[in-house]
Amino acid sequence: MTERSFEILDVSLRDGSHAMKHSFTEEQVRATAKGLDAAGVNYFEVSHGDGLGGSSLQYGFSKVDELKLIEAAADECENAKVSVLLIPGIGIKEDLQEAVKVGAKMVRVATHVTEADVAAQHIALGRELGLKTVGFLMMAHMAPVEKVVEQAKLFESYGAEIVYVTDSAGYMLPNDVTERISALKQSIGCEIGFHAHNNLSMAMANTIAAVEAGATYIDGSLRALGAGAGNTQTEVMAAVLERLGYNTGIDLYKLMDVANDVVAKFMQRPQEITGSGLIMGYSGVYSSFLLHTQAAAQKFGVDERDILVELGRMKAVGGQEDLIYDVAQQFALKKQKVEV
Amino acid sequence: MTERSFEILDVSLRDGSHAMKHSFTEEQVRATAKGLDAAGVNYFEVSHGDGLGGSSLQYGFSKVDELKLIEAAADECENAKVSVLLIPGIGIKEDLQEAVKVGAKMVRVATHVTEADVAAQHIALGRELGLKTVGFLMMAHMAPVEKVVEQAKLFESYGAEIVYVTDSAGYMLPNDVTERISALKQSIGCEIGFHAHNNLSMAMANTIAAVEAGATYIDGSLRALGAGAGNTQTEVMAAVLERLGYNTGIDLYKLMDVANDVVAKFMQRPQEITGSGLIMGYSGVYSSFLLHTQAAAQKFGVDERDILVELGRMKAVGGQEDLIYDVAQQFALKKQKVEV
Repeated sequence: MTERSFEILDVSLRDGSHAMKHSFTEEQVRATAKGLDAAGVNYFEVSHGDGLGGSSLQYGFSKVDELKLIEAAADECENAKVSVLLIPGIGIKEDLQEAVKVGAKMVRVATHVTEADVAAQHIALGRELGLKTVGFLMMAHMAPVEKVVEQAKLFESYGAEIVYVTDSAGYMLPNDVTERISALKQSIGCEIGFHAHNNLSMAMANTIAAVEAGATYIDGSLRALGAGAGNTQTEVMAAVLERLGYNTGIDLYKLMDVANDVVAKFMQRPQEITGSGLIMGYSGVYSSFLLHTQAAAQKFGVDERDILVELGRMKAVGGQEDLIYDVAQQFALKKQKVEV
Repeated sequence: MTERSFEILDVSLRDGSHAMKHSFTEEQVRATAKGLDAAGVNYFEVSHGDGLGGSSLQYGFSKVDELKLIEAAADECENAKVSVLLIPGIGIKEDLQEAVKVGAKMVRVATHVTEADVAAQHIALGRELGLKTVGFLMMAHMAPVEKVVEQAKLFESYGAEIVYVTDSAGYMLPNDVTERISALKQSIGCEIGFHAHNNLSMAMANTIAAVEAGATYIDGSLRALGAGAGNTQTEVMAAVLERLGYNTGIDLYKLMDVANDVVAKFMQRPQEITGSGLIMGYSGVYSSFLLHTQAAAQKFGVDERDILVELGRMKAVGGQEDLIYDVAQQFALKKQKVEV
């Protein structure tokens, strides 16, 4: 048997938590974990959508404690390893220690693409705990290639074994992916991963571009279950990459079975590209801006899409939510002038 | 104002007829047509999913006579032109003459990729009636590039002004598209079009590949409403191609409005990539085989996916439905031997 060309890492039980409003049950998690393990997926992630410690008023309370879900998932696996997401500031080091006690074998420490430095201690802890340890650069379209390389080098220097380029807003097109992954391939020694969202219907093409440029970890979710427009659809990805001649190491039919007989059955809504999803991908702004933008648009009587596109141009980042109202007001004033 | 880089042709009201079980109402068609026209789409198609004359016991009866729908659509347009699909053998020349009387301005004459010769008279009639006349090569993945070129030349010799490469099964990957469109570009003088399905989540990437190789007509449907896994999502396509620097000539927000405020409201089911959709794209067999295959799989106690993949390998085409039962029986025999 030839070696796998890459690892497919399934995030249905973590990114999918957003789409499920953090309501996963132990039964759902067990059935999904069991199916992924049987299909030959070696890594999959289980956490609140915003990572360990995400269950809160601000990010949404989980129906079932994530430690219970992680334990249940690990319990179903013969070969697969459970990953957890940790966003420093939301989760803390103790959360990771607890997750390891119940079976987590991999941690992905996630920061905004320009803020890898906040993750030094968490990466170190991951290694100390014997975990497969990953640095996860979110909103990677917002920084120029050189910055992405610089931040990836930081992650590597802290001890990360894999660095991910993460297209959180589903903004990237294949060239954006190729240049980022290629630059990392030339600059760092550790493995490279890629995580896509499908807001522009390009998640699959971007994932192929990542593999062609040298990524050896690629994320997907079953039936695309994930935030916004969802992720690269795992079972479709396995089929496409097999057609392209790669050794996925996956049993396609078994993967389809868990997608269609398990996940599709508990999804709360289909993963379509709606108006909001499209405009987030088009403008490249973070999904947490959406609700504020809709409120501001209504208050000032302007089109929410104009606000989002302008925020994208300004490269607004999380924490700058005040900007939304300024932008909305400016559009309202412009509109008045035109009408006068 | 610079010239458009290509024409986006919307097929929501024709390929979408499959997804709607041919139940379009005049009101739905009027609202969609009006929105497409307002957004700056120059061509869109209105017909039964299987083209003029498709309303029948075999292909499904239309709720409203398609001539009424074509007339209603044309009535809503200031600039846009209504196209009709005609599959010789399903529709006849009189159907086209009637469609022209109620406002059709374009005809797309569709044949299996190896059978352009059955369309000579229909193409000639289209020209005679003053229509923009198109030859539409379906299941274009099933023939080698040289055959596609040969058939396109036939269409051109009959008078077609545009020849389409049609990925009816959603089987193609970007390289398949690039080599076909590039070869046509070098071999024929008329314009080239491309029509995608999203079974492998590659419709958008394939459409970009087509444009890059020289296609000047590209099909899409709003919210991806179409047969199987649906088509390239028109409003997303406009956004992506704009991001890539092309002049689409489209008002993106108005296109999003008709997608999300009109079409999304009347869709009967979301356009997801289900198990059946994926396996059709993976194996490259025609969607009309699906129901027979499911019946044969049940009768012989075998996996429908094995049958479909084998039919794809054999390059089975419409009319060879008997093969399905032969293949199912072979799998059943193989299974028996293993069990013995």
